[in-house]
Amino acid sequence: MVVVMAPEATSADVDAVVRLVESVGGQAFVSRGLSRTIVGLVGDVADFEALNLGSLAGVLRVIRVSVPYKLVSREHHPARSVIRAGGVPIGPGTLTVIAGPCAVEVPGQTLEAARMARSAGASMLRGGAFKPRTSPYSYQGLGERGLRILADVRAETGLAVVTEVIDPGSVDMVASYADMLQIGARNMQNFALLQAVGSAGKPVLLKRGFSATIEEWLSAAEYIAQRGNLNIVLCERGIRTFETATRNTLDISAVPVAQRLSHLPVIVDPSHSGGRRDLVVPLTRAAIAVGADGLLIDVHPEPKTALCDGDQALPEADIREIADIVASLPAFLGREPAVPSGEFRHVPAAV
Amino acid sequence: MVVVMAPEATSADVDAVVRLVESVGGQAFVSRGLSRTIVGLVGDVADFEALNLGSLAGVLRVIRVSVPYKLVSREHHPARSVIRAGGVPIGPGTLTVIAGPCAVEVPGQTLEAARMARSAGASMLRGGAFKPRTSPYSYQGLGERGLRILADVRAETGLAVVTEVIDPGSVDMVASYADMLQIGARNMQNFALLQAVGSAGKPVLLKRGFSATIEEWLSAAEYIAQRGNLNIVLCERGIRTFETATRNTLDISAVPVAQRLSHLPVIVDPSHSGGRRDLVVPLTRAAIAVGADGLLIDVHPEPKTALCDGDQALPEADIREIADIVASLPAFLGREPAVPSGEFRHVPAAV
Amino acid sequence: MVVVMAPEATSADVDAVVRLVESVGGQAFVSRGLSRTIVGLVGDVADFEALNLGSLAGVLRVIRVSVPYKLVSREHHPARSVIRAGGVPIGPGTLTVIAGPCAVEVPGQTLEAARMARSAGASMLRGGAFKPRTSPYSYQGLGERGLRILADVRAETGLAVVTEVIDPGSVDMVASYADMLQIGARNMQNFALLQAVGSAGKPVLLKRGFSATIEEWLSAAEYIAQRGNLNIVLCERGIRTFETATRNTLDISAVPVAQRLSHLPVIVDPSHSGGRRDLVVPLTRAAIAVGADGLLIDVHPEPKTALCDGDQALPEADIREIADIVASLPAFLGREPAVPSGEFRHVPAAV
Amino acid sequence: MVVVMAPEATSADVDAVVRLVESVGGQAFVSRGLSRTIVGLVGDVADFEALNLGSLAGVLRVIRVSVPYKLVSREHHPARSVIRAGGVPIGPGTLTVIAGPCAVEVPGQTLEAARMARSAGASMLRGGAFKPRTSPYSYQGLGERGLRILADVRAETGLAVVTEVIDPGSVDMVASYADMLQIGARNMQNFALLQAVGSAGKPVLLKRGFSATIEEWLSAAEYIAQRGNLNIVLCERGIRTFETATRNTLDISAVPVAQRLSHLPVIVDPSHSGGRRDLVVPLTRAAIAVGADGLLIDVHPEPKTALCDGDQALPEADIREIADIVASLPAFLGREPAVPSGEFRHVPAAV
Repeated sequence: MVVVMAPEATSADVDAVVRLVESVGGQAFVSRGLSRTIVGLVGDVADFEALNLGSLAGVLRVIRVSVPYKLVSREHHPARSVIRAGGVPIGPGTLTVIAGPCAVEVPGQTLEAARMARSAGASMLRGGAFKPRTSPYSYQGLGERGLRILADVRAETGLAVVTEVIDPGSVDMVASYADMLQIGARNMQNFALLQAVGSAGKPVLLKRGFSATIEEWLSAAEYIAQRGNLNIVLCERGIRTFETATRNTLDISAVPVAQRLSHLPVIVDPSHSGGRRDLVVPLTRAAIAVGADGLLIDVHPEPKTALCDGDQALPEADIREIADIVASLPAFLGREPAVPSGEFRHVPAAV
Repeated sequence: MVVVMAPEATSADVDAVVRLVESVGGQAFVSRGLSRTIVGLVGDVADFEALNLGSLAGVLRVIRVSVPYKLVSREHHPARSVIRAGGVPIGPGTLTVIAGPCAVEVPGQTLEAARMARSAGASMLRGGAFKPRTSPYSYQGLGERGLRILADVRAETGLAVVTEVIDPGSVDMVASYADMLQIGARNMQNFALLQAVGSAGKPVLLKRGFSATIEEWLSAAEYIAQRGNLNIVLCERGIRTFETATRNTLDISAVPVAQRLSHLPVIVDPSHSGGRRDLVVPLTRAAIAVGADGLLIDVHPEPKTALCDGDQALPEADIREIADIVASLPAFLGREPAVPSGEFRHVPAAV
Repeated sequence: MVVVMAPEATSADVDAVVRLVESVGGQAFVSRGLSRTIVGLVGDVADFEALNLGSLAGVLRVIRVSVPYKLVSREHHPARSVIRAGGVPIGPGTLTVIAGPCAVEVPGQTLEAARMARSAGASMLRGGAFKPRTSPYSYQGLGERGLRILADVRAETGLAVVTEVIDPGSVDMVASYADMLQIGARNMQNFALLQAVGSAGKPVLLKRGFSATIEEWLSAAEYIAQRGNLNIVLCERGIRTFETATRNTLDISAVPVAQRLSHLPVIVDPSHSGGRRDLVVPLTRAAIAVGADGLLIDVHPEPKTALCDGDQALPEADIREIADIVASLPAFLGREPAVPSGEFRHVPAAV
Repeated sequence: MVVVMAPEATSADVDAVVRLVESVGGQAFVSRGLSRTIVGLVGDVADFEALNLGSLAGVLRVIRVSVPYKLVSREHHPARSVIRAGGVPIGPGTLTVIAGPCAVEVPGQTLEAARMARSAGASMLRGGAFKPRTSPYSYQGLGERGLRILADVRAETGLAVVTEVIDPGSVDMVASYADMLQIGARNMQNFALLQAVGSAGKPVLLKRGFSATIEEWLSAAEYIAQRGNLNIVLCERGIRTFETATRNTLDISAVPVAQRLSHLPVIVDPSHSGGRRDLVVPLTRAAIAVGADGLLIDVHPEPKTALCDGDQALPEADIREIADIVASLPAFLGREPAVPSGEFRHVPAAV
């Protein structure tokens, strides 16, 4: 840590900082400049934070120079990780496509969407049974009935299932159906939920909060990791900015930045980022090109009747284009084809 | 709702919109302009939303003109509400001060902070036993032990208690100790938690998410109201912007805007807004002047040793200034003094 | 400055930083931590910046700890300044009201608006002859004809005149009519214009860019000050955020923050901040309460026909309320009445 | 336009709106809903805007549904345009690379950077002689001397030259040296400058303001177009958000969005977007994949000694990777190679 003293700080103020740091076993290196004195601290950051140095007389600012997460950091784990969810690998070297409807509505719609997902190159099916919606008057999902539909569709198609969990109390129930648990953007800092999924024994898809910094996102992942679960996939899905032409602003730079800071895989959701069907294809291309480890795409057999986010779901007509991109672009950029050797199928697809 | 057709939309596209609207019992009024045709819809908005009109051919944009919340709206409830928490009124005509430490640490610190709070003009005590922290390595609170300390301090000082709840599973337990439940900024869209506090039978202090629009904030309040609980107080605590000189940017305009849109009381947290002790006094003055119904202020007997947010807690030396402001400024602006007639005391203060 | 080394930096990397700093006459103090080494630099910041230390091997981050402005800083000029424009003082101790129409349209409208301004307690008249508008199809102002109208109205009312300048080429012409030159928000980083007004010999009203940090705002003021002109008044007028209920978000905290960092007076524009007439009165109260040195308010005799920003202009009916606030609230808070001893009148008002 | 009436609006209020609209030759279509009445307007938007309908009694909101720009809009010009600058085509079908140093420092550095630019696949050279810098103490550029260096390097290398202009008074002088004039992000709403370059007879590179919406960006282009100059290239260079891991947030979605709204070419600056050398390669790939018509890249023979933005300039070692990407990725995606048939060379390159 670095303590920046105010211009009017006295020598006694500086000494007080030094003594306090030394009192917890740290070392303090003082650099006296013309307009500012700075003190560099060496020792345990947690000890220093407990000192509330910012409250001392003459202290202008305290700057933390190390990152506040450890288990998910790449500092002590330089190799990028490959996570497996329902047998499907996600990580460097491959491009994993997860696709499906925003909300599970009825068995037919879900099965049809799953077939579209496979056509698009997906090896995992997404679909929400519990929907966190801004308005309490919007569709809230089928609950456990939706999870049963997802399990049935998995049995039929062989696609692994990822679905959202919104309440610590229902994590175990959802985990009994799903191959991977999703934490939605609005719950990224719902710490009770993060701890619950950290203990649930299933891989986790952690969406970035729409106003979370990358550091806060990785700190949220650390909450999960602390409970012993390092099977975490990060998902960039757009951040909130002043621009209103798109629903959110896809922070494409967050992919390489997070991959440098953390060993966890990073995927992109081109559907929620833009919130516009016409942007899904170009943003999919950009995500692959920037180096994303996977994609999370909304598809729906009949977007006009979708109960949730119909404006951004891809219809049948666009599936071919996505399939072409995910089949060819990763290979062109030196990566494996999207769907690896069939190994991930739990159950032979009957269809 | 208003449907804006794209410039290239055909008459058939417009007719399709009209027919669909009429199919759910609505009326559609078409205005054909030179570069745009717009269709005004009259009927039930929920029905229209289920139509996914944005997915139809030729539709450029769908604009919702009514608000997505009802129970907390002022449209059908023009008089501003007064909420009572532990006997303390919050609402138009008074200025209610809630103060206390960010985190409950030990009985002595909490009691001392409560005495500071009373000196500052507070009629309610705030204090966190469950702390949602960005980093899992930061202090997480005492849990139920902290709640017992709060209850003891209430018994001793007569101050009503507001404390944060972070998990639907512990709402009833927290409610058994507290006079008012606080939903923190990071949980403003934790809908499972909102529904749980909506059913808990205690008043709720709903902090605005640091990146939530006012409409999203009121929609979150609607989740609570839907469960039959309209005893909700809104708390503006700063929003996330590009400015880094302050921890957050206090959105002072949000106070009159929310008071015009909703009948619920709106208070301001000048401590978390700026995140700087030197801004608490000026922001307190601004909050009262703009018309806030109350204040939520961090105080700590010894900020240097605070386990949470010590940088912004007011020490003893500043309490007098706050006390002067809350005693005189509301009256100057035509409102009641901060602390009404002692009626709120559950237990005679022994101190 | 502080140089933070990357975790993987070698001793040779640290030595290279030290040698480079010493090569320009600086001193480098090294603090070797477990996960990070930091180097504190003492010497001339400009010299250090020219070294591009961020480009060296093993360097993670370079943190500047001193501010990039000097002349407008309070560090070497602790007393807050009082600026005079057309004889009107602006600064600590008083509250100066500047009011008038967004755009000068015709003589009658301008004179009428000036009378409203005086009724509201104003000692200066604002009015735009050159209007920077987002769309080239919006009203662009009367140009020099508008300046002549302003000068005539000054002669008749005794109000000093502040008006916007948008082009370095017309600064001298505008300065020949105005008592104070305004730099609009969109031109806050138009450095050629800042330098031109710095040399024009007239006081300057510098609006904060709607996405400028406080540091960038003060750096813009430094451009003016560098040309020998320290008669600068800073004007907070709302920043761009994600919130759409208001046109901009008034950053009320910026007032005390800027007053602590700079000795220049800071005023608030409650009209452009919210962009809503119904917010002008509450934001005016908040601005005075937070400690602003003045106000810039849009008034218009007939807002319905205003050629610019009619939605936010105060009509006659609201003038009384503003007059009451500016006459009483500053005094209650221990400051002088808004209009000092008549001394500022160039010409006896004939009206 | 759509006028949304407030819930409490009376029939007389609605009638007043209708009469006013009809008084300027427009038509008003009224849709009376349960909680809101809306009025659709058909006619000339400029006429309607002059009415200040938002100021009328009972009016809640006025929504503009058409775009505020015409000449640059794709509505009446559906084919995307190809612009030529110094003989170099920019537009659909090709990928044009513009590269060079942030600032022109000395002839040797500029020539060396130009050779790097050519190696990277560039057909145009960028380099600043007038530098708008946040701090007045930062390097401000060589002025006309820098322009002469650029012209010399053009003669030697055949690369067309684009350089920034910051003052309406020097537009003609700069235009006498440059093949294309650049408007920087901070000057995007410097309307006097936009009008000056609109009249200068040279193509214009218009960078997006770091806090400008896409609509404001296109409105700024309209200012240039209004003066008869439609040779405009739009450049996305990152927007200001809350994220601090990158200098700006590249708004990758802005490329397809702007290309749908406007017929002008859209290029991307991967250097300023991230402000980090390690992001230039991944962002370059993303920009091409999303469909950008070109790239603007900082290169410097010795970034450590660069007088401006050395942290983001690509050194020799990375040039090969950029060259590979721009030579192969566009072709893979069905576009022409980056450098077309030599035609753009003014002078045979002597090197």
